[in-house]
Amino acid sequence: MRNIMLTIRFNGTAYCGYQVQKNGITIAEKVQDAIEKLTKTRSDIKGCSRTDSGVHAYMYCLNFHTISTIPCNKMIQGLNRFLPQDISVYDCKDMQIDFHARYHCSGKEYVYIFHNSYNRDAFLHNLAYQYGYNIDENKINDAGKLLIGTHDFKSFCSVNTDIQDTVRTIYDFKAVRENDIVKIYISGNGFLFNMVRIIVGTMLWVNSDRLNQDDIKNILHGKDRSLAGPTAPAHGLYLNKVFYDNIPT
Amino acid sequence: MRNIMLTIRFNGTAYCGYQVQKNGITIAEKVQDAIEKLTKTRSDIKGCSRTDSGVHAYMYCLNFHTISTIPCNKMIQGLNRFLPQDISVYDCKDMQIDFHARYHCSGKEYVYIFHNSYNRDAFLHNLAYQYGYNIDENKINDAGKLLIGTHDFKSFCSVNTDIQDTVRTIYDFKAVRENDIVKIYISGNGFLFNMVRIIVGTMLWVNSDRLNQDDIKNILHGKDRSLAGPTAPAHGLYLNKVFYDNIPT
Repeated sequence: MRNIMLTIRFNGTAYCGYQVQKNGITIAEKVQDAIEKLTKTRSDIKGCSRTDSGVHAYMYCLNFHTISTIPCNKMIQGLNRFLPQDISVYDCKDMQIDFHARYHCSGKEYVYIFHNSYNRDAFLHNLAYQYGYNIDENKINDAGKLLIGTHDFKSFCSVNTDIQDTVRTIYDFKAVRENDIVKIYISGNGFLFNMVRIIVGTMLWVNSDRLNQDDIKNILHGKDRSLAGPTAPAHGLYLNKVFYDNIPT
Repeated sequence: MRNIMLTIRFNGTAYCGYQVQKNGITIAEKVQDAIEKLTKTRSDIKGCSRTDSGVHAYMYCLNFHTISTIPCNKMIQGLNRFLPQDISVYDCKDMQIDFHARYHCSGKEYVYIFHNSYNRDAFLHNLAYQYGYNIDENKINDAGKLLIGTHDFKSFCSVNTDIQDTVRTIYDFKAVRENDIVKIYISGNGFLFNMVRIIVGTMLWVNSDRLNQDDIKNILHGKDRSLAGPTAPAHGLYLNKVFYDNIPT
């Protein structure tokens, strides 16, 4: 029995997120179908994370057990033939038998992409959040840095979840501009439901001076979702990196 | 009467090129429809260039005459509402009444984008030509520089045209790599039917050592399409810049 880790990327526009659902087409379903077509066996796949409907991934990791003897490079090519064009595999590795893409994940980095322009761009449809008012990336950087560290992020978690432990560690936060593209990078050991999108929405309120740096501290301390800003649209969000530290391969 | 120049960009995947055709949907048709919806009058539009089916544009210029009094910034916003998501307007200017987007165009720059990887990428589908063999951008640069200057490019022109004057001037040629993306930039005063795509296809033969630098000179001198390489696929090609020198605005 082999335990294979796939690294994929996907344009999430057409999908109801990663995780298999009853009422919509998901990335996991498409990947499972492709594995079944290639290996002739249905495999249960373990993803590194759920993703919201419409969210994209430059890097997403998953693993599955198989008796297939197809070598890794052929596995990539074969799966890319069976996957739809908006999902692609770019790495495949044999892992230890007990490796689990979610449990062994030590952290993730998201990037939120704004197209900071009053006019839309034909090449960015569904791939960046078009925002017409000027974005001051320095102001966002100053406020966002306050989130770095270990905090209770309950205020930055959707109320549509019954998760109990809302303490997470943010490793880094930075906002960078290149012409009319502004990117916010957020990395951490784990993220609550909608957490990155709520942080980004809150940063837009900082940008428009509806909130200041003291407010950010108060939102954290308040542990109340209603204190934070809106949930930014899904289509600007990308899972950018997945970290696996100390996993023997 | 006003003479308005629009600068647009488009993802050409879904279109049979720019120029209106009987048997397919074109960019020009979509732009004309949007102008008619916004201004309530059908306008004849003049584009800077034809483009092949599936070719993209980061910058494309066109002009039209109108009695509409809508100011330019509102014209951009209004047209972007009526245009499909894969076509967008990003500039609008009032020009002299006799300005013509094609006749006054003094040059154009194309960029051809390769995804130089054995594995496809979910975000580059139809937006770059995936090429699995290693591309040596230096070898292509050395050969491509031989095309700079004024030459008879008959060998680099599709035979499906009855154009007589096949002399054109190439201003610059350069191939650059950034990770697994290789871009070939070609600028000139004008381009023959399929000329950029045939140049790129010929450069792939240089890359694979099927042709050398002497062969490039012989192809130019031979004035025979059959001497040059294949026509590279349309979906890697972008009209990148359109030049208007010495046009009073």
